[in-house]
Amino acid sequence: MGEDDLIQRTFAPLAAGFPGAFGLRDDCAVLAPPAGHDLVVTTDAVAEGVHFFSDDAARDIAWKALAVNVSDLIAKGATPIAYLLSLSFPEEPARAWLDEFAAGLAEAQAAFGLSLAGGDTDCRPWPASATVAAFGSVLAGRMVRRAGARAGDRLFVSGTIGDSALGLKLRFDPGLAGALGLDATHVAPLLARYLRPRPPLALAPLLLEFASAAMDVSDGLLRDCGRLAGVSGVAAHIEGVRVPLSAAARAVVSADPGSFRTVLTGGDDYQVLAAIAPDRAEAFQAAARASGVDVTEIGALGGGTGLSVTALDGHPLAFEGGGWDHFPAPGAARPHDKPK
Amino acid sequence: MGEDDLIQRTFAPLAAGFPGAFGLRDDCAVLAPPAGHDLVVTTDAVAEGVHFFSDDAARDIAWKALAVNVSDLIAKGATPIAYLLSLSFPEEPARAWLDEFAAGLAEAQAAFGLSLAGGDTDCRPWPASATVAAFGSVLAGRMVRRAGARAGDRLFVSGTIGDSALGLKLRFDPGLAGALGLDATHVAPLLARYLRPRPPLALAPLLLEFASAAMDVSDGLLRDCGRLAGVSGVAAHIEGVRVPLSAAARAVVSADPGSFRTVLTGGDDYQVLAAIAPDRAEAFQAAARASGVDVTEIGALGGGTGLSVTALDGHPLAFEGGGWDHFPAPGAARPHDKPK
Repeated sequence: MGEDDLIQRTFAPLAAGFPGAFGLRDDCAVLAPPAGHDLVVTTDAVAEGVHFFSDDAARDIAWKALAVNVSDLIAKGATPIAYLLSLSFPEEPARAWLDEFAAGLAEAQAAFGLSLAGGDTDCRPWPASATVAAFGSVLAGRMVRRAGARAGDRLFVSGTIGDSALGLKLRFDPGLAGALGLDATHVAPLLARYLRPRPPLALAPLLLEFASAAMDVSDGLLRDCGRLAGVSGVAAHIEGVRVPLSAAARAVVSADPGSFRTVLTGGDDYQVLAAIAPDRAEAFQAAARASGVDVTEIGALGGGTGLSVTALDGHPLAFEGGGWDHFPAPGAARPHDKPK
Repeated sequence: MGEDDLIQRTFAPLAAGFPGAFGLRDDCAVLAPPAGHDLVVTTDAVAEGVHFFSDDAARDIAWKALAVNVSDLIAKGATPIAYLLSLSFPEEPARAWLDEFAAGLAEAQAAFGLSLAGGDTDCRPWPASATVAAFGSVLAGRMVRRAGARAGDRLFVSGTIGDSALGLKLRFDPGLAGALGLDATHVAPLLARYLRPRPPLALAPLLLEFASAAMDVSDGLLRDCGRLAGVSGVAAHIEGVRVPLSAAARAVVSADPGSFRTVLTGGDDYQVLAAIAPDRAEAFQAAARASGVDVTEIGALGGGTGLSVTALDGHPLAFEGGGWDHFPAPGAARPHDKPK
């Protein structure tokens, strides 16, 4: 079909709502944050065999490529505006696959309120990949930082933690569900969370109002919490028993208590971790409830450095590494078997 | 070394000049165009085996990754500000390689005046790749478009055309230089142009002042000229004899007249193609000369549609395709053998 035709046929409709994209007929797009606002920018890639499976539905791959970037914006208090999409394929994909991929982007655009602004397509050997650069806006100087948390702040997470990592585990080991006595009502939502992360869009304005620091949880709760505490110069404590689990995750952990470690370190949650001053915690929870977002207090920040975690029985939990690292230190165990 | 250490050690120094990067210790960067300006955004990827060779120097790969994106910004009249860098490697690169890669980025940052703002690193199977999203600023509403050229406009290109594509040809066929009777003074600059494209930064403000349309020449002069004319709704005519050639390219074409086709269609030029109203052409040339940028009038735009080109002997040149296409129509010949 040719590169130009492919772009016009498949991708230009996704840019129709964004005048600065010039119908994807120019080399660059134009973007201006609203008056008095900064632009917040981030980039994340998903690659076949690493972040998604070769036989995942094209709609889900597209959704995930966009959602993992939107997750970063939301955690900074930013409102998504637009994105650039850089695609690579080992050969020109079938039209039907591309149509489904575009449909997944359209779903994610509608869910998160942003438009395609431009991109790049090339042909290179397997694995296929989609690299997104996403743009949001935030009141000037107000982006919610990782640094900024203070000793005494309470730690909150949105949604539930661990579903995606447990879903991935079930997918790698098809016999596991049966061995743990799980039925489809448990398995399906866990698999779905790996495929379709749903970062909490409605939380962004509340983070601006209430959070002293925030970030999205994408590389494992423990690793990301350690990062937030480390860059803020405080210590973090998480009470394992307070980490919010879905009914499905609860069923897995109850059948296999060891899998609680996967919950804490598995990654791919795409929920928000926020530090809230103690005198604002109640108001934050009420505002989140009013916005339809579940937030749960899971611990607190204190003086010193480091991260401590209690297990479900209340005893201190020993852990190493603590999250997903693309380039782990020599000898460090990978937290789970991401597809190769 | 671990992903976080790798980022802090190798890449954070490249972001030191850009406060909105927060030392690469946050999930997102903050970017605000100067008052009264728009942000101009673009993305382009380079992959091993497609856009660069496995044994290219890390410094050159880094330079090219950034330069091909800056090329887009310059052609739109934009001033480069910052960029995001998404890297993928099949395994953690050696420190020495990473240091050289960072040094190449630093050289390109200094040459083009922009800073690293953020990025993403992951581990996935070969080929390695670097995807850049680059940001520039331009007076609000003034980005130089591809569309906007008018019948009667003169066509200009900056620099010389074809060097990079001829350099690639010489690299693929080590016996060619000898067969054509070329010596090192011809071969070296052609090879260098493939490795280190040098888009004409000083031309950006002049395009804002003089150009009715512009774009960078990256997929071959003929294809890109056809795109500019097509989206502007005019016809283009290029006089082959006026296309500016370097001394080295002239030596190749003189020894092998058929290689003039490579000059016109080979791609990777990263020069600017601009349409200038006839009554501004002289002033544009004078201003470019004063800025130290060579620009050459190579043809003109007229009523109708399509692209015509004359060969060096003045006769019409027949051509098909006419440039690099990552996904060519079935049966279409690839313009040259890009590495596989």
